[in-house]
Amino acid sequence: MTHPTAAMLVIGDEILSGRTRDSNLHHLAGELTQHGIRLMEARVVADDHADIAAAVNALRARWDHVFTSGGIGPTHDDITADAIAAAFGVGISHRADAMALLQAHYDRAGLPFNEARQRMARIPDGATLIDNPISTAPGFTLGNVHVMAGVPNIFQAMVASVLPGLTGGAPLLSQSLRVNRGEGEIAGPFGALAAEFPDLSMGSYPFIQNGAHGTNLVIRGTDAGRIDAAMTRLCALVA
Amino acid sequence: MTHPTAAMLVIGDEILSGRTRDSNLHHLAGELTQHGIRLMEARVVADDHADIAAAVNALRARWDHVFTSGGIGPTHDDITADAIAAAFGVGISHRADAMALLQAHYDRAGLPFNEARQRMARIPDGATLIDNPISTAPGFTLGNVHVMAGVPNIFQAMVASVLPGLTGGAPLLSQSLRVNRGEGEIAGPFGALAAEFPDLSMGSYPFIQNGAHGTNLVIRGTDAGRIDAAMTRLCALVA
Repeated sequence: MTHPTAAMLVIGDEILSGRTRDSNLHHLAGELTQHGIRLMEARVVADDHADIAAAVNALRARWDHVFTSGGIGPTHDDITADAIAAAFGVGISHRADAMALLQAHYDRAGLPFNEARQRMARIPDGATLIDNPISTAPGFTLGNVHVMAGVPNIFQAMVASVLPGLTGGAPLLSQSLRVNRGEGEIAGPFGALAAEFPDLSMGSYPFIQNGAHGTNLVIRGTDAGRIDAAMTRLCALVA
Repeated sequence: MTHPTAAMLVIGDEILSGRTRDSNLHHLAGELTQHGIRLMEARVVADDHADIAAAVNALRARWDHVFTSGGIGPTHDDITADAIAAAFGVGISHRADAMALLQAHYDRAGLPFNEARQRMARIPDGATLIDNPISTAPGFTLGNVHVMAGVPNIFQAMVASVLPGLTGGAPLLSQSLRVNRGEGEIAGPFGALAAEFPDLSMGSYPFIQNGAHGTNLVIRGTDAGRIDAAMTRLCALVA
């Protein structure tokens, strides 16, 4: 299968302290799957310059695309842009086009374009800007790394502006069957079926509802006919 | 500060495909913070033997504790126990005490203790079992790696049984101030305050509500008096 691959890097102490529950990974995962790009790995790191740079370098070397969220605002704890520049070994400075966008935005709002706000125009050399239709401060793409805001509605808008420009593979399809039987009861036949369809990926996800065990059985792939064939067999086996 | 450190490894295709939204990271993050253990990093990997083993080895070498979730059930896609054994270079087999626990459980339930269910008694050599009060199948601790189920209520029960046995540091405290002002307006004084209190960690988390910009300002540390002092200053600066 020749699908492009991707990783996500979530940046922020607030996720690791338990203060905030990340929602951007789940959003990106669904969007990439629809676009035919496989999300292979995700990492969450603290607001730490060296940790961000090391994670970006590990991920960009291994996967086709890297998407980051968080740390591109105006405050002292927003260090992502600098860490990305360091990871690539390039300079970073206030860029004229980003300055102009932000200047116009704050002029319209009647707010001072102060030093903190100007920090958001600091872009690593060689990057292209990612549009931010919500609050103007841009993200950027440098090489295969797409750097986006952490605020969920801004992150989502940036994903929507980046994804159409990326080549996807065939859509990643899935079908699922929910059965009121425990995993241990169906594991044998389900595993045998998975071995029969090596071109598909089959997963089993147990749940407990009202004290009773149940399982969601999921079949993933790109050939709708093969998924249908496997699902027909699965229904006969376990339903 | 001498707090033990930790990392989490979430294992499962279903998180990366966007089918399931992980909730275990957020739960663990909050519990560790209360226990005085710093969660420094998290990773999500697919149901892939080599990827799981590589991530476990990277994380256990760097942090005091590693907590994993997912992949210890009875089906063919549950490969975590084998991957952990491989990561440590130890053997894995059906262990007598785990077999006895599960045999008694399925006897009580009047269900066959079949080959699939027996897979859940496969424990790497040298591990100690983690109690599972929900569905019996145990997790295990090997070295500094705590291997737990992915089903949220079982994960939570296993965390509750592991954490009291781990040495924590002073509780990690935080206070936050929510202001109806954008980050760019308060970034200057907030950054200056952070520089004045280098023993504390200060973070700024913007939000947009009803079209208006607001910010949560969070001060973290272990000395309640210092946090109070910083918060008093912060209120005077920005409120």
